[in-house]
Amino acid sequence: MSSNTHAPAATPTTRLCTHTLTSLHYRDADLVEDLMGQKTFTEVMLMQILGRTPRAVDLRMTDVVLIVLMEHGLTPSAITTRLIYMSAPENLQGAVAAGLLAVGSSFVGTMENCARLLDRIVDAADPDHEAREIARHYKGLKSPVPGFGHHLHKPVDPRAYKLLDMGRAEPELPGTRIRALETLARAVDASAGRPITINATGAVAALLGEIGVPTGVMRGFAVISRAAGLVAHIVEEQQSPSGRFIWDTVEQAIPYVGNAVRASP
Amino acid sequence: MSSNTHAPAATPTTRLCTHTLTSLHYRDADLVEDLMGQKTFTEVMLMQILGRTPRAVDLRMTDVVLIVLMEHGLTPSAITTRLIYMSAPENLQGAVAAGLLAVGSSFVGTMENCARLLDRIVDAADPDHEAREIARHYKGLKSPVPGFGHHLHKPVDPRAYKLLDMGRAEPELPGTRIRALETLARAVDASAGRPITINATGAVAALLGEIGVPTGVMRGFAVISRAAGLVAHIVEEQQSPSGRFIWDTVEQAIPYVGNAVRASP
Amino acid sequence: MSSNTHAPAATPTTRLCTHTLTSLHYRDADLVEDLMGQKTFTEVMLMQILGRTPRAVDLRMTDVVLIVLMEHGLTPSAITTRLIYMSAPENLQGAVAAGLLAVGSSFVGTMENCARLLDRIVDAADPDHEAREIARHYKGLKSPVPGFGHHLHKPVDPRAYKLLDMGRAEPELPGTRIRALETLARAVDASAGRPITINATGAVAALLGEIGVPTGVMRGFAVISRAAGLVAHIVEEQQSPSGRFIWDTVEQAIPYVGNAVRASP
Amino acid sequence: MSSNTHAPAATPTTRLCTHTLTSLHYRDADLVEDLMGQKTFTEVMLMQILGRTPRAVDLRMTDVVLIVLMEHGLTPSAITTRLIYMSAPENLQGAVAAGLLAVGSSFVGTMENCARLLDRIVDAADPDHEAREIARHYKGLKSPVPGFGHHLHKPVDPRAYKLLDMGRAEPELPGTRIRALETLARAVDASAGRPITINATGAVAALLGEIGVPTGVMRGFAVISRAAGLVAHIVEEQQSPSGRFIWDTVEQAIPYVGNAVRASP
Repeated sequence: MSSNTHAPAATPTTRLCTHTLTSLHYRDADLVEDLMGQKTFTEVMLMQILGRTPRAVDLRMTDVVLIVLMEHGLTPSAITTRLIYMSAPENLQGAVAAGLLAVGSSFVGTMENCARLLDRIVDAADPDHEAREIARHYKGLKSPVPGFGHHLHKPVDPRAYKLLDMGRAEPELPGTRIRALETLARAVDASAGRPITINATGAVAALLGEIGVPTGVMRGFAVISRAAGLVAHIVEEQQSPSGRFIWDTVEQAIPYVGNAVRASP
Repeated sequence: MSSNTHAPAATPTTRLCTHTLTSLHYRDADLVEDLMGQKTFTEVMLMQILGRTPRAVDLRMTDVVLIVLMEHGLTPSAITTRLIYMSAPENLQGAVAAGLLAVGSSFVGTMENCARLLDRIVDAADPDHEAREIARHYKGLKSPVPGFGHHLHKPVDPRAYKLLDMGRAEPELPGTRIRALETLARAVDASAGRPITINATGAVAALLGEIGVPTGVMRGFAVISRAAGLVAHIVEEQQSPSGRFIWDTVEQAIPYVGNAVRASP
Repeated sequence: MSSNTHAPAATPTTRLCTHTLTSLHYRDADLVEDLMGQKTFTEVMLMQILGRTPRAVDLRMTDVVLIVLMEHGLTPSAITTRLIYMSAPENLQGAVAAGLLAVGSSFVGTMENCARLLDRIVDAADPDHEAREIARHYKGLKSPVPGFGHHLHKPVDPRAYKLLDMGRAEPELPGTRIRALETLARAVDASAGRPITINATGAVAALLGEIGVPTGVMRGFAVISRAAGLVAHIVEEQQSPSGRFIWDTVEQAIPYVGNAVRASP
Repeated sequence: MSSNTHAPAATPTTRLCTHTLTSLHYRDADLVEDLMGQKTFTEVMLMQILGRTPRAVDLRMTDVVLIVLMEHGLTPSAITTRLIYMSAPENLQGAVAAGLLAVGSSFVGTMENCARLLDRIVDAADPDHEAREIARHYKGLKSPVPGFGHHLHKPVDPRAYKLLDMGRAEPELPGTRIRALETLARAVDASAGRPITINATGAVAALLGEIGVPTGVMRGFAVISRAAGLVAHIVEEQQSPSGRFIWDTVEQAIPYVGNAVRASP
């Protein structure tokens, strides 16, 4: 009577993990026999996410991307994690989870928006034309092209520069996404009439694309890496608490301007 | 007028990250010059969390711990992440964050409870006596000792066995936490009158303690590792969705037993 | 040196709340003198959200909308809350927060998508033409029009019917959003060649619009109401736990199909 | 093969909600016939949480408690919600969920800790003795007794005073929890040698206990009410954004003190 009457969904399956009375398997590998003591965290993570044994070049690109995404100081993520940790210190996972909710469309997770543009350029019959169309579109919106520009790092984001250099130095990579980003950069510069920084998320989008990470999964690498960064913020918060200071500072900096207490001296 | 009148908190400081117009620093290292292309993700993560340059043995122990904590199939974490991803696919970080909230006091995060016991045994004048007191206490509660027992892996949790073997093989580790766990295991077995499995979270507590991770931070390693595992579940959900099936299955399995619809045929 | 060099943001202000040594104010009201014991929760909530004293009709519409959005049984939200509560029972807020993350673009929060269509129809020079364009657009996508259709409640969603009846019976409401929904319904039916159910989120979008809730805030009403519904699920979970059963049921229903354990007997 | 071998959990049931092809039921009530247009949000919420038809006095006490818990200005909750909303504005529910994670053991959710003390006093053979024991215990910890003291509202928290006055004026309430709080207050004052403020969470604990809310559910009322408060913060953030300002303010207020950039001019 309390039933869902639409056609039942087909039975889904999983390939990620299984366990028996005496063993645990990640995909086709035996955790104890094949992975523990033989593979790194990055290696097993990539195997689980990509569904294949990662190559050395995949590990190099993933490690550098994860390192770059780990930290940027007292960002909205880090401030959030510190405030939530102060409020519920028994619940470390809640503090990290709250901070991760900031890995969104406006910061950190923006590589997805750039990767979608690179996908379009790679798939286009005329990549230069497609890139010019993209640049024109964002100019019309008076909005920066995803992957370009940085409020701080000008004229060159040193992280982006190094990431792309590392990618270009890998002969096993196809190079299509890096070239698409270069094509887009030419169009963006031409449209702006001056050089516009390729930022770190733009370079990350290109590199993750080069090793075959689907665009819709890229934000996940930011989430994993930032989780590690936020745990370090919790350690610092345990050693030298900042939560109460942040609360006081913000409360005093933003005045109340209603009519409630007009008459107060 | 809208002021917080308690004494202002002292100005906190941070050592985790700073940035200038041309560079980004993680602790004392230059991200571009010192880390990118030279360090792995595990290495930089440990440097940020522990505040020191990790040794090779620290990396080996951390990698194996992170691998072990990554996956255990369709757990509450993974089910949650899949359901939230179905509900808001534009918001991958929300799906991971929701799943991480399950890394709590009952599952995955339980290494903290075991590590607290190991801390007590290490600090005790008479470790065997302390271990017997702990075993007696939990027997009185009719509750398993944290780090011991597993509903599935009996009589031996193969992950725990391998973790402890790997730790014992490392001459640079002090061995105090592993010995404390062995001391506790003898007391637990004596109290039960039969051998009780050391489970994976018990062994993880010992190993992370061996490399100097404070007890109050250990749950963070589960959070980081599980974040990677949950991203893999999202990839599988993108390829072969299970969310609607899970919803239907649970809804049909749990009957409504109120009086609302008694008269329905 | 670690400074943010973009132009500093202007100082924001708040009108929501202030406190002095002896009083607390919500907007221009004194909490103790003006609100406690004199206003209902719905009344104060609306005052805070809309920035004006709500009329009786605003309260009637808001109460009925909040009631309708509170429950729909063992939804992804409720399953999530129960699983997270089992995993970290010391942290009730985490269980509710996780469940709320399911109030997204696919379920519950969908009234926003419908409200955007109503906004377009209200603003259009030719509302009928705009409605036909919308119906044509979604037909092209082979996707239901937001606010229309329901996998369960056919041919009429009784909640939607009642909501719209209640709205039509209020002479103080302008009626523009309800008429826009009716206009859209005619276009949707014509496009489909048969009557398509207006669902509850469609009717909610119209009613919240009638009392002046901006489209970008509507999802918030689902969040508030569902928070109450999820607390009731936690109470039931405390009395008769379902978390372990859900876990077992899902794990057994979704088979592992990798190659790890082919040879097992 | 991937099976959970512990004894299967018994099939749980639910009384909260069911639906048929033509109706939706909340507990034993028909949503459309019995609730919509006839009950307030507070009324249906209490019916779902408490499993009984609430009395008028239950509604009065619940409304005033929910109002009191809704707002306290730019708290960790509100700051978090604003930062997450800036980072992922497409995902309003994530911003509220993140803010709710601050309703923890340190703030807002603290009524649970006080309610546990009231439970002990109510159940004690000698309530005065039990209250003195509690006061002595916290004095030994040099920690405030839950429900007592406030960094801002001294010597009297006007919200607590009004809440208790309202509770005392209700002849239908048993009065046991309010008397337990008074007993505890006498012991706390005697132990401190001066009057200590009963704070709002102490009074909330007493009032929710008076209407029969179990201690383990009380934090849920803070979560529901704060969800409404946080939606109002999002509305203000949409009208006059503060997120970037908060980020800048905090980043500039907390200096980096590592060795990375010593030599910078």
